[in-house]
Amino acid sequence: MPSNASSPSPEIAALAADLQAAGVQIDAAGLAETLARIAAGPRTYPARAWQALIAADLPPELADRLDAAAEALRPAEPTADPSRLDRLREALATVGVDGFILPRADEHMGEYIPAPAERLSWLTGFTGSAGVVLVLPDVAVIFVDGRYTLQVAQQVDTGRWTVEHVVRTPPAEYVRTHLVGRRLGFDPRLHSINAAKRLADAAEEAGGSLVALQDNPIDALWADRPAAPLGPVEVLPTSLTGLDAAAKRARIAAELATRDIDATVLNQPESIAWLLNLRGADVPYTPLPLAYATVDRTGLVELFLDEEKCTASVRAALGNGVTLRPFEAVGDAMDALGAAGRSVAIDPDAATEWMRGRLDAAGATVTLAADPCILPRARKNAVELAGTRAAHTRDAAAMARFLKWIDDTGTQTTELGASDALEGFRGAVADWRGPSFPSISGAGSHGAIVHYRVTPETDRPLEDGSLYLIDSGAQYLDGTTDITRTVAIGRPSQEMRERFTLVLKGHFAIATARFPAGTTGGQIDALARQFLWKAGLDFDHGTGHGVGVFLGVHEGPQRISSASRVSIEAGMILSNEPGYYKPDAYGIRIENLLIAVEAPAQEDNGRAMLCFETITFAPIDRRLVEPSLMTAEEIAWLDAYHADVRSRVASALGADDRAWLEAATAPLAGENRSCGDGITP
Amino acid sequence: MPSNASSPSPEIAALAADLQAAGVQIDAAGLAETLARIAAGPRTYPARAWQALIAADLPPELADRLDAAAEALRPAEPTADPSRLDRLREALATVGVDGFILPRADEHMGEYIPAPAERLSWLTGFTGSAGVVLVLPDVAVIFVDGRYTLQVAQQVDTGRWTVEHVVRTPPAEYVRTHLVGRRLGFDPRLHSINAAKRLADAAEEAGGSLVALQDNPIDALWADRPAAPLGPVEVLPTSLTGLDAAAKRARIAAELATRDIDATVLNQPESIAWLLNLRGADVPYTPLPLAYATVDRTGLVELFLDEEKCTASVRAALGNGVTLRPFEAVGDAMDALGAAGRSVAIDPDAATEWMRGRLDAAGATVTLAADPCILPRARKNAVELAGTRAAHTRDAAAMARFLKWIDDTGTQTTELGASDALEGFRGAVADWRGPSFPSISGAGSHGAIVHYRVTPETDRPLEDGSLYLIDSGAQYLDGTTDITRTVAIGRPSQEMRERFTLVLKGHFAIATARFPAGTTGGQIDALARQFLWKAGLDFDHGTGHGVGVFLGVHEGPQRISSASRVSIEAGMILSNEPGYYKPDAYGIRIENLLIAVEAPAQEDNGRAMLCFETITFAPIDRRLVEPSLMTAEEIAWLDAYHADVRSRVASALGADDRAWLEAATAPLAGENRSCGDGITP
Repeated sequence: MPSNASSPSPEIAALAADLQAAGVQIDAAGLAETLARIAAGPRTYPARAWQALIAADLPPELADRLDAAAEALRPAEPTADPSRLDRLREALATVGVDGFILPRADEHMGEYIPAPAERLSWLTGFTGSAGVVLVLPDVAVIFVDGRYTLQVAQQVDTGRWTVEHVVRTPPAEYVRTHLVGRRLGFDPRLHSINAAKRLADAAEEAGGSLVALQDNPIDALWADRPAAPLGPVEVLPTSLTGLDAAAKRARIAAELATRDIDATVLNQPESIAWLLNLRGADVPYTPLPLAYATVDRTGLVELFLDEEKCTASVRAALGNGVTLRPFEAVGDAMDALGAAGRSVAIDPDAATEWMRGRLDAAGATVTLAADPCILPRARKNAVELAGTRAAHTRDAAAMARFLKWIDDTGTQTTELGASDALEGFRGAVADWRGPSFPSISGAGSHGAIVHYRVTPETDRPLEDGSLYLIDSGAQYLDGTTDITRTVAIGRPSQEMRERFTLVLKGHFAIATARFPAGTTGGQIDALARQFLWKAGLDFDHGTGHGVGVFLGVHEGPQRISSASRVSIEAGMILSNEPGYYKPDAYGIRIENLLIAVEAPAQEDNGRAMLCFETITFAPIDRRLVEPSLMTAEEIAWLDAYHADVRSRVASALGADDRAWLEAATAPLAGENRSCGDGITP
Repeated sequence: MPSNASSPSPEIAALAADLQAAGVQIDAAGLAETLARIAAGPRTYPARAWQALIAADLPPELADRLDAAAEALRPAEPTADPSRLDRLREALATVGVDGFILPRADEHMGEYIPAPAERLSWLTGFTGSAGVVLVLPDVAVIFVDGRYTLQVAQQVDTGRWTVEHVVRTPPAEYVRTHLVGRRLGFDPRLHSINAAKRLADAAEEAGGSLVALQDNPIDALWADRPAAPLGPVEVLPTSLTGLDAAAKRARIAAELATRDIDATVLNQPESIAWLLNLRGADVPYTPLPLAYATVDRTGLVELFLDEEKCTASVRAALGNGVTLRPFEAVGDAMDALGAAGRSVAIDPDAATEWMRGRLDAAGATVTLAADPCILPRARKNAVELAGTRAAHTRDAAAMARFLKWIDDTGTQTTELGASDALEGFRGAVADWRGPSFPSISGAGSHGAIVHYRVTPETDRPLEDGSLYLIDSGAQYLDGTTDITRTVAIGRPSQEMRERFTLVLKGHFAIATARFPAGTTGGQIDALARQFLWKAGLDFDHGTGHGVGVFLGVHEGPQRISSASRVSIEAGMILSNEPGYYKPDAYGIRIENLLIAVEAPAQEDNGRAMLCFETITFAPIDRRLVEPSLMTAEEIAWLDAYHADVRSRVASALGADDRAWLEAATAPLAGENRSCGDGITP
């Protein structure tokens, strides 16, 4: 991506001179460029980790000045500009297409994307995390999902933009009925192979065509487009990953050989990070280095990644068998694979149409097949599991402090105040590397908005007699957490308690499930819903998603969702997060993370069974539990869980917090509950 | 199908003369042909229903002689003959192919097939209900599933035939690896379009080809091939079907018009029977008339069905809009659709490759789409549901008498004795039309064989301290039943009682489930397994299948199975039959039928929910229930179910049976059970 760094300011020139005087080899232009890229990227954890790319162990005064210089270069908040749409239409005419389709996406098909890839936001003003725009001569459409119908109306000029619901009117469907014989341009770097195929089919059915554009027309229009990020890369030791990169490369090579494929090209940084035990800081929330890689059937890797992100020691740690090449050289590498007549596998849902087209044009035999890193990455090894258990235990202490703080503070804080407080508690935890996603901090009716994201405009105090829902997580060097707790502020209503208990029973059913090997997430999803269903209730999201280890908080292929056809395997990490949402009233969600483990042998028919180990350790609000709706087994589980929380977390807490934890995890059994299972007392 | 009736015997000639004297218009040759076809078909219910095709109200003496004459013509049991394989190979050479693939199937893709379609049995000696043979120059393979691995070894000459497991080595897979460039013949009338496509792809990958044969080579070799059946056809009144055929035809026509299709061709008699409110008697267990039909977008139907199966009143009842044409004329009708340039929809999983090829060759535009009768047939209307409830209530009286008889008879009977007794009880029920499938009557370890079918060779007495499993069903004019009960013979072991109770808890979870509209059978299947899973146990079949109303006992598209992606809709009938099978020891299955119904509105979020109404009413063996493993809610359900059984069935029983029923349905609640839900008493 192009850098838009301007010529160095006098301050930067002076800082460069002082750095040189301190023995750092850097000139003013280079420093200006580096600082612009740092400023355009996410913050790093620790905050000054990026300074290692300039020099190790800088004097504090210089470090402070570097920080201030980067901060001064932070890009301004994006502003909407109605002329952009007109200028885009003019640009389309000059490249000979009638329209343009643009998803909020980068070339790595990532959930979080870097600032220079925020083209959709630049064009429309919409800052949501998912969307597609379609610009035709007579109409400009923005497609968003149900999370964003309110936000899009606030951010986008609806006089110029038509809003469509992406599920009810998918873009391909709209193209099918509205393209009418015209030429639709697209940036093949921003669409997966399968997505481009769907669009091409739709365009053809409409008598038109989908036309791959050489350059994204927005990039030439976007004058102050942020620079590409420059997140520092680190190499994780085997003590954290359990397997060195050479062993992983050998495994992928064997897989390619079995399938008689010469090479694969990876564009998803999650896969590359797993394969080479790398982490980076190019996008928020997930420690990813933006990169491409090729792996051949002998296990040799070419890694296409900006060398400036790597210190000398990182470069050395990559080791033999991994060649570091410029990020932009991946195109030439694909040309070379083609010229050599290689068979190359790429993943049709992850690789982009640009990759397929370039390999194909160069003469490669392209096979579409799942990225071979996905399944071995999903089956975490014992070292990764031990790491994430440790990270979860440390995270639990922060959660306990936070939950006590909420109990103490109650109506004296707001949604933002609470999520800031939680980040403060987490920031003090060893090896914290920032949040794993934007916290969902919802008071009262905001809790009923499944993907609510608090802003200064929507922030509100916690109110007496309401529920407060906080869904948050953290990245640690040894693991990734994701936890939701729903807390009573003051005295909850009986309805709140009953519905919380139905959600808890579903949570319990997943946590204690045992199932044969080969069972899919689609098969067990209903276990979490059965009690809500009996009351005529449900929740409109999956029960659980896969989770990485110091990687993505959303990681496939496993899920607990009616649509999942993927077997749950030992070592996979999943969330267990049933909920209930009463619109305009309150929301409930109870989320712990689970590891799928082999169940101890049982009985006489020798079936291999799996079960779950819960690894999230925070009190579940006892004030919201209605014991008369629970079976003795469920109450025993909750009490045992709370005893486990206590034994793991108490020693990390001070006396006050420990006293709070004792009370919050006191057993329910024997306390004030009716006889029997509560259905017919 | 060709008839093989020989010239009339002196007895038949004399009978024909006496019939003529009684005013019946029939000659000796015609009578001989009719009797041969009756003899080759299944028995009718009532047993002499077929005689209506000769004359109404015959004098008893002539009716008796007709019966005896038909009985004398019953085809002999098939015998194996090793020369048949050699003769087939010779015949293949004369038509220019190297091999032949033959499934156990008829041209209607039916579960039960008529005698002349039993080509696989004629060729191999194997009489199982599913199988495929592949004859190549160097090898002859028979593919069967796990149910038949023992039986195939007993019936088939394994010196000449290689046995393969149809799931582990699917025929298409075998073709892919063994055809090696050769020409594989197949009868396109016996393979669905999708199945033929899979075989053709496999043959092509093997460098060979799949070749459609004009005639099935076995038919010319099979000298005494049974005649086509001549089951009498009846037209059901609207009082049983709830909707007249004209309304159904209009509905299918509207569906075709919506899809802009000119016509559809149906080859599945279930669809034709539903559409035209017809029933027949051409195959065992299901009241089907073997037929084809075309439906055009104005709702006009051509019905291709042997006119001799219809009395004059049946022909009249078909009404305007339905033209009866000879069975064999369906080919010409497809040619005519093609010649007229029509667009024709056929179902790729039901229609045969012969139909596709013939339509295509004739010039039709063929669209592959689901048979439009399937979904409206599956959603039973109120009249059909009332009918099947009534049939189930009558069937329940027979079951109660039978279960008492088992209790009284115990070890004094055998598997065959018991299933015969049950058929006797059912035979006395009003409007009984025979069994809906072959009873599974399994004593002791035979109960662990999921699809056990007792024969005189395997028959064994019920033994003290064992379980007896009986899975059976009946056709009635107003409904189809399917019920499994597992009965303790003498004193069951504690293990039997505990596992029976786990199965019962799963049965209960399905029976009481409530779920949102749109939920699939795949989503709820695990509810039936969750308790077994927790004990490390499971069962290797689906939890439930769809059921018809005086039609197939297996009827799609709905199922309760992890593989099902079909939404359960109001009016659909499903079985609920979890089980547990301990190999070489005992089997447990508890099966009731359910109707999916809209749940009463509940709570405040307005979701459309469905639940199930159980319509099978027979005691569940209380001696096998371990109350300490059940929740109070489960015990209350069982007691309420038993009270319902009592109130519906008692009045149909005599005093002794009624007394037995009282005891068998006495409530468990309050009786000898531990406090709480039994998990941690």
